[in-house]
Amino acid sequence: MNRVRVGIAGFGTIGRATAAIIAAHADLIAKRSGVRLEVTAVCRRSGMRAQDIPTGARAVADWKQLVAADDVDVTVETMGGTGEARQLVLASLNQGKPVVTANKNLVAMHGDELFALAAARNLPIGFEASVAGGIPILRVIHESTAGDRLRAVHGILNGTSNYILTQMESRGIEFDLALREAQDAGYAEADPTFDIDGFDARDKLCILARMAFGGRLQVSMIPTYGIRQVRAVDVHSANRLDSTIRLVGSAENTENGIELSVRPWMVSHKSMLAKVEGVNNAVFLVGDKIGTQMFYGRGAGGDATGAAVVSDLIEIARDLAAGRMSAKNMSGFLDSPDLKICDDPRPVSWYLRLTVKDQRGIVARVADVIAHHNINIDSLEQEPHLPKDRVSFVITVEPVSEPTIRAAVDAINAFEFMVEPVLVMRVE
Amino acid sequence: MNRVRVGIAGFGTIGRATAAIIAAHADLIAKRSGVRLEVTAVCRRSGMRAQDIPTGARAVADWKQLVAADDVDVTVETMGGTGEARQLVLASLNQGKPVVTANKNLVAMHGDELFALAAARNLPIGFEASVAGGIPILRVIHESTAGDRLRAVHGILNGTSNYILTQMESRGIEFDLALREAQDAGYAEADPTFDIDGFDARDKLCILARMAFGGRLQVSMIPTYGIRQVRAVDVHSANRLDSTIRLVGSAENTENGIELSVRPWMVSHKSMLAKVEGVNNAVFLVGDKIGTQMFYGRGAGGDATGAAVVSDLIEIARDLAAGRMSAKNMSGFLDSPDLKICDDPRPVSWYLRLTVKDQRGIVARVADVIAHHNINIDSLEQEPHLPKDRVSFVITVEPVSEPTIRAAVDAINAFEFMVEPVLVMRVE
Repeated sequence: MNRVRVGIAGFGTIGRATAAIIAAHADLIAKRSGVRLEVTAVCRRSGMRAQDIPTGARAVADWKQLVAADDVDVTVETMGGTGEARQLVLASLNQGKPVVTANKNLVAMHGDELFALAAARNLPIGFEASVAGGIPILRVIHESTAGDRLRAVHGILNGTSNYILTQMESRGIEFDLALREAQDAGYAEADPTFDIDGFDARDKLCILARMAFGGRLQVSMIPTYGIRQVRAVDVHSANRLDSTIRLVGSAENTENGIELSVRPWMVSHKSMLAKVEGVNNAVFLVGDKIGTQMFYGRGAGGDATGAAVVSDLIEIARDLAAGRMSAKNMSGFLDSPDLKICDDPRPVSWYLRLTVKDQRGIVARVADVIAHHNINIDSLEQEPHLPKDRVSFVITVEPVSEPTIRAAVDAINAFEFMVEPVLVMRVE
Repeated sequence: MNRVRVGIAGFGTIGRATAAIIAAHADLIAKRSGVRLEVTAVCRRSGMRAQDIPTGARAVADWKQLVAADDVDVTVETMGGTGEARQLVLASLNQGKPVVTANKNLVAMHGDELFALAAARNLPIGFEASVAGGIPILRVIHESTAGDRLRAVHGILNGTSNYILTQMESRGIEFDLALREAQDAGYAEADPTFDIDGFDARDKLCILARMAFGGRLQVSMIPTYGIRQVRAVDVHSANRLDSTIRLVGSAENTENGIELSVRPWMVSHKSMLAKVEGVNNAVFLVGDKIGTQMFYGRGAGGDATGAAVVSDLIEIARDLAAGRMSAKNMSGFLDSPDLKICDDPRPVSWYLRLTVKDQRGIVARVADVIAHHNINIDSLEQEPHLPKDRVSFVITVEPVSEPTIRAAVDAINAFEFMVEPVLVMRVE
């Protein structure tokens, strides 16, 4: 039986879960794959308690020692961030050691550089865990759809936001309380920006779109809006329309280029997107031949993400043992053209919620701006019984393109009676 | 660029779709995988029209010529059946050529023999297309869950049955009409037994359970009930309970062994199973670490199934080109223990529908049998306004095990007033 020795850098939730899965399932893995995984070295910046160090492993001082260690064949990067994590991946490859990472931010930001070095060194980088936790969506795109032309990839990519939105809906609570509870439950960070402002979903969408459409793409090109502005009033409005709210990352390959965005969508209760609750994720693929596929599961958490890390480790270990280590074909990163961004997105329906200081003539002035942009109002409703200094209007409009609605919203946001910016949601 | 030459035996819907995908996407495949696929030979028992033969390929007289041809590197089996198809796979492996098959019946019935020869010859058999069409569920089980302990696999595995059930629900039509329309639309065979009596789902479940739980299993061990007995009255009853009917194949790994069945389930409209409509399939995996995952997509049809065949071809072609052809680790088939079948299944709720010739005392006699088996009735309803020689009773009961409900149903079926056997559905 071939042994493959694993070093884990960044021994937090995911790192510990990875080690625990390897320890608990070593025999099962050996039986199924013909390779025995062993964690031999771990490191963590903040230090480790002796009881946290896996049996048979040793704690090393830092990731540099870990990468260089003679008893480490494969490096696992679960440190997070893009500074030292990037250096670790480069150093590991330069040492001739494959790497597995769970770091979406790193892959989205520095994928070109990392995969170029991996190709030069003929080594794989496993990064299944970086998108949608335990859902093997990258493997599916890479392998199962290799013979199909993908038209769209979209889905619920951030478990924290989805948890907050489903709590707001099921319990009728406000955003601030739902966020605070998510933080208390460990589903949201003390600084929740990365999750609730859409950046986490944006990084994942960037990776998905690159792989699905085979071209390069910078995260900065993805218009990104989070859920920070969503209020209970919006959840109520959605419910009235037999709908609910989901944060959706979407990339569509149209004749005019790729349409991209991360933003809240109002989706019918009947849709599969609405069925995705709590910290779960769901990714939809649309291809010429496969039609529409959906992949659903836990999007985060140590166990699901650790299982994805282990699936990459097994694949690499098999190839290591068979003496056939090689870089992956990283279409979308290496030797790939830049994706053309669509500058003329297709019309869709929109939901706008305005919060205003009540005064005479507001409806007329808002309706005038909307009409001026050649947008047809589909419905308009003023929420009753609200304090006069914070009145909500909900407007839904017939399909127009994103730039058109954006221009109208910018004009509305300039009104002196606006208490906060308009919340804009796509209506599906 | 490495060329890999493909021979396709059985040039029906799936075979033609496979050739069409290769023709349409040859450049895309070459770019993504570094290998150029070419269809060089095809055969079909019933003969072929010249215009159906792919450009660059030739028609050969039979599968024996195809397998032996010098210009065929990989054989695709889309003939169906288990007679000649089995011989073809054996012959191809004996010629040193890997095989891709879309034939669930063949893999379920003869997998042990085929994978044993493949291992002896160190050649892969691709069979992703045999289960759930375009959904890459076998690859997911094989690769992504290799480090997890799977607890359950279940889902909607037969598109024809699902099409019939969703037509019955959405249009309120009877089973016979829905079946006839499915046949006219090409979704059901002239002899629909394989689909509507659950055998197709049973074969797929057998393959899924073997791979998920790593043990051998004969299809004959799977209790199998189809949808032939489902009537509009059952769809109405389900609707009254905010539910719908789905044919579900289910395998659960319990402490007492594997619980297996293919049968109709009554599922809540809120469940994800209920959202799977038309000819689509959905497969749920439950693992210790991954939690619950769901994979959804087209379960049948030439394009989706052909795309799955092509995904296998690409994987094999890459390895052929890299000179690293090898048999797959076929845990669940080779060197695997027999799966232990659970003889004490866990209690679940049940729906019973009786069709009787109305006479005095029926309810009392049925209720007596049910009580005699220590089963508690949850609800009992007699459908109004039915002809006296065909009256329907619907009974739902509190959780009992399958053998218990089976014993009660056997006793009820023996009553002289029964017009047809009791329809039994699991209630989820």
